[in-house]
Amino acid sequence: MREVGEELIIDLDPESSPAEIAGQIGELHPADAALSLDRLDAQTIARILPILPAEMAADVLMNLEEHGLEDILVGMPAGTVAGLACELESDDAADVVGALDETRQFEVLSMINEESRGDIESLLRYADESAGGIMSSELVYVNRDARVMDAVDLMREAADELDEVHNVYITDRYHRLRGVLPLRKLVLARPEARVADIMDPDVVSVTTEMDQEDVAHVFRKYDLVAVPVVDRLGQLVGRITVDDIIDVIHEEVEEDITIMAGTSDDEYREESALRISRIRLPWLIVGAIGGLGSATAMNLYRLSLEKVLALAFFVPVITAMGGNVGLQTSTIIVRGMHGDRELPGETRTRLLREWRVAVTNAAVLGAAVYLTISLWLRDWRLALVVGSALAAVILVAATLGTVMPFFLRRLGIDPAVAQGPFVTTLNDIIGILVYLGLATLFIDQLV
Amino acid sequence: MREVGEELIIDLDPESSPAEIAGQIGELHPADAALSLDRLDAQTIARILPILPAEMAADVLMNLEEHGLEDILVGMPAGTVAGLACELESDDAADVVGALDETRQFEVLSMINEESRGDIESLLRYADESAGGIMSSELVYVNRDARVMDAVDLMREAADELDEVHNVYITDRYHRLRGVLPLRKLVLARPEARVADIMDPDVVSVTTEMDQEDVAHVFRKYDLVAVPVVDRLGQLVGRITVDDIIDVIHEEVEEDITIMAGTSDDEYREESALRISRIRLPWLIVGAIGGLGSATAMNLYRLSLEKVLALAFFVPVITAMGGNVGLQTSTIIVRGMHGDRELPGETRTRLLREWRVAVTNAAVLGAAVYLTISLWLRDWRLALVVGSALAAVILVAATLGTVMPFFLRRLGIDPAVAQGPFVTTLNDIIGILVYLGLATLFIDQLV
Repeated sequence: MREVGEELIIDLDPESSPAEIAGQIGELHPADAALSLDRLDAQTIARILPILPAEMAADVLMNLEEHGLEDILVGMPAGTVAGLACELESDDAADVVGALDETRQFEVLSMINEESRGDIESLLRYADESAGGIMSSELVYVNRDARVMDAVDLMREAADELDEVHNVYITDRYHRLRGVLPLRKLVLARPEARVADIMDPDVVSVTTEMDQEDVAHVFRKYDLVAVPVVDRLGQLVGRITVDDIIDVIHEEVEEDITIMAGTSDDEYREESALRISRIRLPWLIVGAIGGLGSATAMNLYRLSLEKVLALAFFVPVITAMGGNVGLQTSTIIVRGMHGDRELPGETRTRLLREWRVAVTNAAVLGAAVYLTISLWLRDWRLALVVGSALAAVILVAATLGTVMPFFLRRLGIDPAVAQGPFVTTLNDIIGILVYLGLATLFIDQLV
Repeated sequence: MREVGEELIIDLDPESSPAEIAGQIGELHPADAALSLDRLDAQTIARILPILPAEMAADVLMNLEEHGLEDILVGMPAGTVAGLACELESDDAADVVGALDETRQFEVLSMINEESRGDIESLLRYADESAGGIMSSELVYVNRDARVMDAVDLMREAADELDEVHNVYITDRYHRLRGVLPLRKLVLARPEARVADIMDPDVVSVTTEMDQEDVAHVFRKYDLVAVPVVDRLGQLVGRITVDDIIDVIHEEVEEDITIMAGTSDDEYREESALRISRIRLPWLIVGAIGGLGSATAMNLYRLSLEKVLALAFFVPVITAMGGNVGLQTSTIIVRGMHGDRELPGETRTRLLREWRVAVTNAAVLGAAVYLTISLWLRDWRLALVVGSALAAVILVAATLGTVMPFFLRRLGIDPAVAQGPFVTTLNDIIGILVYLGLATLFIDQLV
């Protein structure tokens, strides 16, 4: 029995010879072997994989997390790559071939047997993040006139090729998907029963063009372990299993979170500091330009600031509060948008709710800041200006945080951008303008 | 065949009678019915569920996303709740019973048959977010001396009770887990074969105490669709299926993202603006106190600011940049920490990498801001102070962003907090002190 309480990762010495390392990890589960190898650099891994048994090497390759396929495969002989691809299911094999440059793709494909090559070539045609791009071609299907024993025979034939079978799919004579037979039912059925009589005709399927995020949504909603993929004609072309969907969910999450943080999930597989810089700098430059925008905004009110320097002291509280409220609001809105569960009228409902929340928060924080400043600086006029500006900025930020995600989505931009540095920066400038504008209106009372 | 391209959500009229609404959603898949009902308020849903067929009602109840179980069950008669619980698998039934207050728990449990009651009571003893808390008791297991046909017979007996079977588990006479037999193998095996001869003895299992996030990690690593759960003695007590793990992943993600945004995932199920306010306000108050800290920091340098007001204009660029760099860094560190894949020496490696990135970014942005200010304000001395302070703040923020997550984790605090408003606020204050401190050193050159 496998102990999973503790990881089985081996601390490998990068100075050891490839053969030595291959020996050390040879007995591990491929997932553990991959995590152990992940610490080494891509070239070393590329030298170790060909020494491992082909099936193990292929599984390890697909389980590496810190390295991109490109980096591992770049120096590998075409024959080795073809050998690895042959050990993999078609979806992974297509990812491997897809990670090569075009010339090498042809070279590797020419070394693969005709049937697998055909599968890989058709999978490569689909967009990476579509159902077609993540499906595999290996699946068990029978005509609806078949009997249970025929289905079992087919499974026996495919047993070598298929790691996991959860369902047998039922097609008509045009190869259109007509039903599904879960293995649980197959086990209990009489061998001579017709599959059409015991199948579930109400099968959930997805089309090749569906976005992988929507496919994940379908899995979650219907609690699936596998879904058949059909083309525009309803013909069965592949299946997607839940392990790939878990990877999709992780990918999409990391994408959302890194957008919020102003970077990109490409960074995880990047070792060079310069290239990481190049990923992060654009967001920081946006922030810097925004910061200079804030400086310009303050410069507009230079006279007011010269009269009452203390006004400047409260700029950070105004910008911080605008940023925090904007981020809270946009996050709740964006997370609520996920999937396609948007009903007419929902936008308005959400805006109204955010407004009610914002009014409460504005009242509480405005009053608290008013009291703090009037007790601390004993200047109730300044306190009133800062407190009411803060309240106004909270309302503005909440509005922006609610409206911006919908606006971005209409422009075809990922609404998660509304949670990133760009909008925070915009909030800073607007907050400063509102605050100093208000202060300037009452400047004569303040001096 | 089910069309999944478009959602099958019905836009229900909240004014209709419960019977009318029940009729409208009666033909839908429970997941679609739940999404349609989600728009209505909890009391209305609680009136509709008892009219639906019991199995449908139970499935709809577990698929509601916008409402907590508590809110729906609060006004429901104990008999109805017991009826729903009886239709559910033990893990969901335990969630339903667990959502009641203690008196009603006893009342409802007394109405449930002895076997299910025993299952529910033992599940309720486990911590909510542990493997024990999410597992179900329904599973198929046979003694290792059994034959394939015995396993099939057992499956037949359990067919009503079990929605999904992926594996038959093999135990010894002490009920300890000894192996697993995937249905795929069961279908192909001869009926008279001994399960011990064809089972996979290398079964991945988890213990009841394992945190649900670690269980999710195990599923992802080993590409599982179900995992058996054992107690401290190695005895088989339950199983967890992948659909529950997908929910766990979503839950953990929403937790992380809402911590980053300074709110909580409890908010999703909250309708009252006042209660949402109460969730968000603590984070905003932290921000406000931090803002007043920034004001105090600026007040320390009042003399410098009086001499050179323009220094104040660049406070927002300094705080924004510190915030952005801190968030980028802490996000990459925190996301890299997930799971238990931390090797000795990795922390140092990461710190060094973040430093190299920070030095590059500091150089580029410091120089860019220096050039912009000296061309714009034609004041190369001010430009030098702002540019070098900006570079210093970037280095400080990157250090804080790297060290803080590890520090929080050692204190037993979720490292994701390092991505939230608390640390951003701290960054603001430190940034202002660094900037104005540096400016004051050179103030005579600036005047």
